[in-house]
Amino acid sequence: MKEFNYYNPVRTIFGSKQVQIGNILKADGHSKVLLVYGRSSIKKTGLYDEICESLKSADIEFTEHGGVSSNPLLSHAREGVLKVEDATAILAVGGGSVIDESKAIAAAAASKCDVWELYEGKNPADALELYTILTISATGSEMNAGSVLTNEKTQEKLSFHSHLIYPKVSIVNPALALTLDFKYIAYSAVDIIAHVLEVYFTAEEHPKIQNRFCENIVKSAISATEKILENPNDINARSEFALCATWALNGLTSLGVGNYSFPNHMIEHSLSAIYNVPHGAGLAVVLPAWLKWFYKTERKQTKRFAKKIFKKNSAYEGILALEVWFAKIGAPVTLKELGVSGKDIGMIAENIDSVSDKWELKHEYPLKTLKKILKLMK
Amino acid sequence: MKEFNYYNPVRTIFGSKQVQIGNILKADGHSKVLLVYGRSSIKKTGLYDEICESLKSADIEFTEHGGVSSNPLLSHAREGVLKVEDATAILAVGGGSVIDESKAIAAAAASKCDVWELYEGKNPADALELYTILTISATGSEMNAGSVLTNEKTQEKLSFHSHLIYPKVSIVNPALALTLDFKYIAYSAVDIIAHVLEVYFTAEEHPKIQNRFCENIVKSAISATEKILENPNDINARSEFALCATWALNGLTSLGVGNYSFPNHMIEHSLSAIYNVPHGAGLAVVLPAWLKWFYKTERKQTKRFAKKIFKKNSAYEGILALEVWFAKIGAPVTLKELGVSGKDIGMIAENIDSVSDKWELKHEYPLKTLKKILKLMK
Repeated sequence: MKEFNYYNPVRTIFGSKQVQIGNILKADGHSKVLLVYGRSSIKKTGLYDEICESLKSADIEFTEHGGVSSNPLLSHAREGVLKVEDATAILAVGGGSVIDESKAIAAAAASKCDVWELYEGKNPADALELYTILTISATGSEMNAGSVLTNEKTQEKLSFHSHLIYPKVSIVNPALALTLDFKYIAYSAVDIIAHVLEVYFTAEEHPKIQNRFCENIVKSAISATEKILENPNDINARSEFALCATWALNGLTSLGVGNYSFPNHMIEHSLSAIYNVPHGAGLAVVLPAWLKWFYKTERKQTKRFAKKIFKKNSAYEGILALEVWFAKIGAPVTLKELGVSGKDIGMIAENIDSVSDKWELKHEYPLKTLKKILKLMK
Repeated sequence: MKEFNYYNPVRTIFGSKQVQIGNILKADGHSKVLLVYGRSSIKKTGLYDEICESLKSADIEFTEHGGVSSNPLLSHAREGVLKVEDATAILAVGGGSVIDESKAIAAAAASKCDVWELYEGKNPADALELYTILTISATGSEMNAGSVLTNEKTQEKLSFHSHLIYPKVSIVNPALALTLDFKYIAYSAVDIIAHVLEVYFTAEEHPKIQNRFCENIVKSAISATEKILENPNDINARSEFALCATWALNGLTSLGVGNYSFPNHMIEHSLSAIYNVPHGAGLAVVLPAWLKWFYKTERKQTKRFAKKIFKKNSAYEGILALEVWFAKIGAPVTLKELGVSGKDIGMIAENIDSVSDKWELKHEYPLKTLKKILKLMK
């Protein structure tokens, strides 16, 4: 087991009970916040009205920054920074995209720097306090210190991490996801599983306790997803799903494993940046392909994965089982299904390659390897 | 899955690299601390000298409060409060006992109240910042918000919890345990396993993800213990053991499970309070006995436990396997081995009963039940 530091101060409020966010903000001394959200869903569900009512009841003034897109954009984040003014906190209501963009706004506004500088390596000096109300569990952003953003001009999708962007309070209410489209459950499930497997497969060391912890999250995510698809109102399944999402990327899976990387995300981010595909959909195409390339050099861990998750005797059967499961739950598993032409492989590989030295967790694949992996996605 | 709140802001520094505690305290603005430790072991190992050197190099003044006993005592904690004076932080160097007593001192000194009031239900108003250097992994106190103390006059061993007593920084160096007596490994292992099983068995709900999480810690603790007993210098095994101890009682195992209680600790605390037995030794006697009484009403979970941990087909076989394992690693499994007379059962039951309404996590067993469980320990 390798040495590690762990620090995660997020206050998580988890459950279906309605939480008075206005009171929480007031108790923390805030009187003006920037409310950040996505497109129209929180208005359709009534959540927007509930939140506005809660803020008003607690005398919390707020300005609004709606319209965050699924792959949040630099231009939109920059507009958000201009709207901060004298707000002392950001209230993010939505999924990982809204939270990630809110983290960018919180840090850039307080650090008085351009948003993109943060993604190119500048450490933020400060960040406004961030409160989140999570409407869809997938990214784990509600309980981690990372943010991903796309620079639409340069087609780069990058990340940055800082303890300053840990949310102060995150409200995770599994019931809020009940109104979402089925396909988002599939994409979220893939994202959760990918988060776990990036560490599980690429880590320097594999302490037993961490192997089991990762396998637990993957198995629990699989069974919760199947239950939700069978009965979308199964609140227990929704709750377990939500806990899987939080645990998949809040730092716990990588304790003691040493160095690791996120090659699947590195590859997928180029697909998102170029084609604007949903992140989880992209990962469902990337991950099985990457595994088909990867397992030849890492037979032990991939064989373990196959056995523990799918009760298969060979690594390759395990990988196929994962691919089949992704397809079963409604995720695409080929570039074609993603709407991406196989002819673009060269261009996609170039994009990944050009961005790779800006990646926080470097996993430098030569262009040849990138093309090999991409071809496995056809 | 039940709703829950989770908050754990402890900064954990985990690994065998030597950490300059003086620099950490200085960076946090401290210039005077109270150094709390146990008996002579940190002086024998040289750790005491290293720490004093580190504090001096960083110009940190310190007063000392040594002599914390394995079952830390109220009288000693009260003396510690008197020594705080103008120290702005407590530095606890030792195992769970030292950390627990330090938490009591930190809270009572800052809240200007008597130490025992905290254990009788008074919420602390404030607490000094607490820094810990853990020399033996067992209790999980390095990463939780609880403290246990014995009032030697009344023979009551009670606990209190408050976010204010979360350590600010905890340094967990598995190499520091290398010098300890073998029997402490056994007692620590039992403590870790008991922490997990209290929740695993008594929880209102058993989400799959939590069942697996608990089973993971128990299995990992068992295998790490066996490796350490075979080769005490196996630093990987020591490290996994340490992570098991931290995860066993830092709040993670009880997320979403609803209400739960700690009946084995309730019973064991009376044994400790009356006979001053090591906590883990007491638990090794209590837990199998409690399980032999408990399983008759909770067959499903105990059967699962037997299968998952010991590959046994019946609950009772699983309980016996646990008892045998405790004996194998050198822990006592009967009152007699603990040095406790079977004739004292009535008196012990009375003690548990008289203290039980002061317990934070109530599990009210009638006297008759307590005696039944105690008889199973003969």
